[in-house]
Amino acid sequence: MNEIISAEVRAQYRFWTEEKLRNADTDQQGHVNNAVISTLFEAGRIDVLNAPEIAAIRRVTQIVVVKTLINFRKELFFPGMAHIGSRISRVGRTSLDFAQAVYAANGEVSTAETTCVLLDRATRKPTPVPDALRDFLLGT
Amino acid sequence: MNEIISAEVRAQYRFWTEEKLRNADTDQQGHVNNAVISTLFEAGRIDVLNAPEIAAIRRVTQIVVVKTLINFRKELFFPGMAHIGSRISRVGRTSLDFAQAVYAANGEVSTAETTCVLLDRATRKPTPVPDALRDFLLGT
Amino acid sequence: MNEIISAEVRAQYRFWTEEKLRNADTDQQGHVNNAVISTLFEAGRIDVLNAPEIAAIRRVTQIVVVKTLINFRKELFFPGMAHIGSRISRVGRTSLDFAQAVYAANGEVSTAETTCVLLDRATRKPTPVPDALRDFLLGT
Amino acid sequence: MNEIISAEVRAQYRFWTEEKLRNADTDQQGHVNNAVISTLFEAGRIDVLNAPEIAAIRRVTQIVVVKTLINFRKELFFPGMAHIGSRISRVGRTSLDFAQAVYAANGEVSTAETTCVLLDRATRKPTPVPDALRDFLLGT
Repeated sequence: MNEIISAEVRAQYRFWTEEKLRNADTDQQGHVNNAVISTLFEAGRIDVLNAPEIAAIRRVTQIVVVKTLINFRKELFFPGMAHIGSRISRVGRTSLDFAQAVYAANGEVSTAETTCVLLDRATRKPTPVPDALRDFLLGT
Repeated sequence: MNEIISAEVRAQYRFWTEEKLRNADTDQQGHVNNAVISTLFEAGRIDVLNAPEIAAIRRVTQIVVVKTLINFRKELFFPGMAHIGSRISRVGRTSLDFAQAVYAANGEVSTAETTCVLLDRATRKPTPVPDALRDFLLGT
Repeated sequence: MNEIISAEVRAQYRFWTEEKLRNADTDQQGHVNNAVISTLFEAGRIDVLNAPEIAAIRRVTQIVVVKTLINFRKELFFPGMAHIGSRISRVGRTSLDFAQAVYAANGEVSTAETTCVLLDRATRKPTPVPDALRDFLLGT
Repeated sequence: MNEIISAEVRAQYRFWTEEKLRNADTDQQGHVNNAVISTLFEAGRIDVLNAPEIAAIRRVTQIVVVKTLINFRKELFFPGMAHIGSRISRVGRTSLDFAQAVYAANGEVSTAETTCVLLDRATRKPTPVPDALRDFLLGT
């Protein structure tokens, strides 16, 4: 990972996930299909949200994606690893935004901004972001 | 479908499902990826097993795949439709076999034989194939 | 489709594509996975861009996605059909925007805005949108 | 990997591949979808066949799957890693068989036997298995 992600880039994202690309991720255009890039961003977010530090919060709240904006900057190719950097760029009352990027051997291939809403698992209604979740996500 | 599936072939399979292929189904080899062909066979089986005639049986039994043998005879290409023919080739005490084929504009692209076991949803143990299920599946 | 898409909604999108959902499209959250919704939008755009009326243009130009914004409004469930409406919301010098929506039995489940750039297949450089392509896409 | 794969199991397969499971691999049954298990086996085979030792052979021959038999022994769950063991169980004149297994935290979840045929990339006809390929695959 050190050769692909510079120290400067690494510092921009609090969380990093590594995913191995698959032949089945490619399409007839010869590169990794765009929908798989959504899947890589999802994998990065889920790794953050599955952290044991916030397991108690996750048992009572569900975090659902309501909006995602993806920029496709370069093609992503198989074989290889995808490195997904994630940080929280905004914490609202009942929502939060992820800023993410996918890096591969050829550099930054995609960036994304994704808005998630917290739902109470019992009522299925939006619920405030707990302080402990905010602190974990922001590292404060 | 009439131009793709001859009357002779149509008569070989009691059930037919039509699936629209997607660009995302292709891989860098330029054809539909082999795992997607598994998905087409699954789609055919699920269409059979989701029939309203057997909904009451399905509510108490789960039908799980334990073994599948797939022959890849021709490449499958996007765009186009896949026609999946399915019949029951064997009914055992607690299991049954599907015989299936995928047809496309270029003919028979794949055949499969799949063994499924019936599980009681409550006990998660194998349970006998009900007569009503057998009759529906075999058309007897 | 008539029961799902009102005449008013139908008039908002010049192009319509119908995709059959698959069990493999679902995830453990019990609904169709968000990345598959990207795939449905891709399927809608490709159906538009594969139209025989513009085949000659497509042979010399490639149309690549550079940005997509997806709103997830409702969950999408299997089994069922997804109806994807597509229209061109902007034509630039070398780019164009798609506005799209996915409808299912429970209504409008997702909307998307996607920016595509035209590349000359020979030079791999951005190339102006041909008048014939613009006229076909806008129906003018 | 040491906790999941015993030394005895490890010795049964000459090649090992590790794949990270994704939320998108799951389906509404709550486990990894069966077609994704095909994808894991494909990933294992491709890792073997992409080895630099046989790159010169691969440039002139294509290795295509003609038949695969998969046994589903246990459910595979997200999150986690899948460990795919692969060995060559038969080398014919123009074909070869892979024997493979997928292991996860809950043990052996699936086994597969897959027959591949070598094609000359120029003629698209079956071509004999080169000695150097056989020696590499069998470790002889």
